[in-house]
Amino acid sequence: MMALRYGDEMVVIDAGLMFPEPELLGVDIVIPDISFLLENRPQLKAILLTHAHEDHIGALPFVIDDLPVPVFGTEFTLALVESKLREHGLLDTTERRVVRPGEPFQLGSFKIEYIHVTHSIVGACAIAITTPAGVVIHTGDFKIDPTPTDNIPFDLHRFADYGQKGVLALCSDSTNVDRRGYTGSELSVRERFDEVFANATGRIFVCCFTSSIHRIQLAVELASEYGRKVAFLGRSMENNTSIAYDLGFLHIPDGLLLRPQDIRSAPRDQTVVVISGSQAEPMSALARVSVNNHKSAEISPGDTVILSSRMIPGNEKDIYRMINHLFRRGAKVVYDSGSYPPIHVSGHASQEELKLLINLVRPRHFIPVHGEYRQLELHAELARSLRVPHLEAHHLQTGDLVEIDQQGLVRAGTVPSGRVLIDSGSADEMIEDVVVRDRRHLAEDGIVLPVVALNKATGKIQALPEITSSGFVSPELANGLMARAREVVEQTITSSSIEEIGDYAVVKEKIRRELKRFLQRQTNKRPLILPVILEI
Amino acid sequence: MMALRYGDEMVVIDAGLMFPEPELLGVDIVIPDISFLLENRPQLKAILLTHAHEDHIGALPFVIDDLPVPVFGTEFTLALVESKLREHGLLDTTERRVVRPGEPFQLGSFKIEYIHVTHSIVGACAIAITTPAGVVIHTGDFKIDPTPTDNIPFDLHRFADYGQKGVLALCSDSTNVDRRGYTGSELSVRERFDEVFANATGRIFVCCFTSSIHRIQLAVELASEYGRKVAFLGRSMENNTSIAYDLGFLHIPDGLLLRPQDIRSAPRDQTVVVISGSQAEPMSALARVSVNNHKSAEISPGDTVILSSRMIPGNEKDIYRMINHLFRRGAKVVYDSGSYPPIHVSGHASQEELKLLINLVRPRHFIPVHGEYRQLELHAELARSLRVPHLEAHHLQTGDLVEIDQQGLVRAGTVPSGRVLIDSGSADEMIEDVVVRDRRHLAEDGIVLPVVALNKATGKIQALPEITSSGFVSPELANGLMARAREVVEQTITSSSIEEIGDYAVVKEKIRRELKRFLQRQTNKRPLILPVILEI
Repeated sequence: MMALRYGDEMVVIDAGLMFPEPELLGVDIVIPDISFLLENRPQLKAILLTHAHEDHIGALPFVIDDLPVPVFGTEFTLALVESKLREHGLLDTTERRVVRPGEPFQLGSFKIEYIHVTHSIVGACAIAITTPAGVVIHTGDFKIDPTPTDNIPFDLHRFADYGQKGVLALCSDSTNVDRRGYTGSELSVRERFDEVFANATGRIFVCCFTSSIHRIQLAVELASEYGRKVAFLGRSMENNTSIAYDLGFLHIPDGLLLRPQDIRSAPRDQTVVVISGSQAEPMSALARVSVNNHKSAEISPGDTVILSSRMIPGNEKDIYRMINHLFRRGAKVVYDSGSYPPIHVSGHASQEELKLLINLVRPRHFIPVHGEYRQLELHAELARSLRVPHLEAHHLQTGDLVEIDQQGLVRAGTVPSGRVLIDSGSADEMIEDVVVRDRRHLAEDGIVLPVVALNKATGKIQALPEITSSGFVSPELANGLMARAREVVEQTITSSSIEEIGDYAVVKEKIRRELKRFLQRQTNKRPLILPVILEI
Repeated sequence: MMALRYGDEMVVIDAGLMFPEPELLGVDIVIPDISFLLENRPQLKAILLTHAHEDHIGALPFVIDDLPVPVFGTEFTLALVESKLREHGLLDTTERRVVRPGEPFQLGSFKIEYIHVTHSIVGACAIAITTPAGVVIHTGDFKIDPTPTDNIPFDLHRFADYGQKGVLALCSDSTNVDRRGYTGSELSVRERFDEVFANATGRIFVCCFTSSIHRIQLAVELASEYGRKVAFLGRSMENNTSIAYDLGFLHIPDGLLLRPQDIRSAPRDQTVVVISGSQAEPMSALARVSVNNHKSAEISPGDTVILSSRMIPGNEKDIYRMINHLFRRGAKVVYDSGSYPPIHVSGHASQEELKLLINLVRPRHFIPVHGEYRQLELHAELARSLRVPHLEAHHLQTGDLVEIDQQGLVRAGTVPSGRVLIDSGSADEMIEDVVVRDRRHLAEDGIVLPVVALNKATGKIQALPEITSSGFVSPELANGLMARAREVVEQTITSSSIEEIGDYAVVKEKIRRELKRFLQRQTNKRPLILPVILEI
């Protein structure tokens, strides 16, 4: 989230979420602290969204109630936002305004123009904001793809125009600043996909991020070429593809679609399943298919699974475990192992593209955004190394307040910032209820510790699960409740497959989820639940 | 661990350990189940070690008491083993026999020959075992490095000899089977190191695996060329380099060595610190330096840190967090981001090398080893794709018992196998005491749950830590004890730097360690300690 203020008018760019480090037990998502915006609420005119990835729009449902301003974005971005708002019952109360690249509009003192960029999602834009003090450009997330699959090129000319007229500040995506050279084009994935499709005999599962409409379009096109029908599997995959189809961003030839419930009965060599779960999230569709626990689909020996996505740092072990499961079921698995042609390409610009953009825009101030400390530092250094006349590069931290003009940048202190932790109430992609959890009050709801002794080889529990609790309910009440809670835990394990039980992350998540539901129903409290598995 | 039996004589190859998945709380290391070997104890003649990496020798101190047979290995391998045995008080009771490559020896019906291979550690060998039923070759870990830094080439000729005479079975390293092409030579790292050394103005920290003597030698040579002295920092780094130096594997010019206690006072531009902690282990030397909490060394702005090692899957997030800390302290950090020339190369063979070896040895049976399920499967497929006459490739799992001869391979059932969990009593590289923990008895020692409410921004505790325990000590005793335990936790946090506190993995590990010590001293029990951090 970045706020831009001129006089007493302010706009905010993006409102993203993060997923917490595993040490933050009991927290599902993390959103920005908006205290500063609340304090300056009357100044806020709009929230401008660059694109529809979770780390840019995910916090919106949690902040829009307190910041009821119009939300701007491209058609596809707002469609995904609307789907979120609907889930949270916020659709009717939120004003949305569709923006088209190249059609600037005025908002108080700001002239705002969306500029089309290439990225791993459709409808991604940079935003150029012209203020009386100068132009500020925020790139959003981008790469400079010379051959985008939808033939809509990165709008080099608009950036060049702004660069020619003079830009006060450029805020640019720092994700891949540690990669030399150029990021591969989205088109370069087609060669490898084609090779895999040509050689596949059984079903083909294609797993990618559910917002990667370009990648999904590729799977659909190849399915059509190779005489296969396409099913979409997984809640957000079904949701996103349906939105993209309705808006005309995803083209599916007539008669090509296969319903999830028909996957099992369709001829295997005429089937493609586009499926979610690229990060091996325990309850995702592919994770469940990999342990043969999905109602609509299964792996048969000889099926092919394409993992066309990045392994997000921290998830590698889970992903490799899922890949092993898939191999055990007899699948051929094609995953990103650095070989060429690539099965996945990044959506973020590498060093040469980042340099090109800075040289095009040649801003007075360069402010790296969208990266950890090391990436912001490297990006600032990269910008300095270009020797653009008068360019100053600044490494800013979340919470830094700065004042900029042609004279320079003044650090004007810091504002409250940080992370707000959200316990979304459920992990199976369904938002049942949401609590912006004040962690200081956690002690009131207490901690529940189910301890299960498991034999990994047999998948059997060795003794009745123990449940310890602290600060949760009165001991008397707890006794009866805990006896039933033990049964819930036991039931959860008994109903799991041996492969699920071999995967402690999955067992723990299942126990946590079931117990949470049970305890909330019984007591209306939401204790922190920490499952402990003892392997014996 | 692999056992090879002919008649009633048996040898075991390697005895490695694994590090547990984080879900296995309270477990520090995992070793193989040796039930089968205990049942067949009289048949066991020897343990043959291929090389001195932890995943090949780490379990030795835990099994040698029950399997008191001679241990064979090269000079360097046994030197590292001896250092371990000494720590466990097992040196005097363990028979060790130094083996030299190319000098075969007889052991009952087995003729055993060590064959020199290139790998990321010195003294790495394959083992060829000639039995009356045929020759079995186990590669250990290897790559085929055309330009090893010590000029001792991979012994292609011995493999060719065996291949010419006929080999019954080849067991080969599967680690990098998913990488196309060739793995880079150890020499290719020198170019990048040289570039970094040439441009460095402050101190240079070089972090790599502590057994990577080739890599350490490179740092020493460049230090000497660029007029810098070298200090070794971190317990296992100091230990391993001292052993390698004594044995003549590490050459250090006279007067080049700098003592750890002299690092701070030495001229920064004349200092190289070779340091352990490449996986950002919370108590490792570099992790402590990165948060300015090491007694002997610190980062000054302008210092350079080279991370010359692989990020082991599962550790990426911790490593990137450490890198951010280093950047914050003003260091330039050079880490493996896929750019060329490489700052690190793998020690394991890629596809072309694996094919070359199979074609050289052309075994009757091919058995992939050293990999997860997916890697073993891919390696078996790779071998089949070569069309070596009569070659059969078999995907075996841990615990499979097979009988092989020229006719074929017969699956003869499975033997008990699995994982034994070890709680080493301490996490700071010091082995104080070791418990092969029978997890069924864990309930007896109970569970202790320290809950700390932390303000990440200020690094302050918001309330006195809560401690909940279950099945640990009697409630009366617990009250007094827990009051003091709360103080221990509080003390641990108060004495930590704000950067450590921002790093929950570190805080948790510190709390776990201090509390474990305290409780064990007070009660002689070893409960499972699960620190919970609440961010507020």
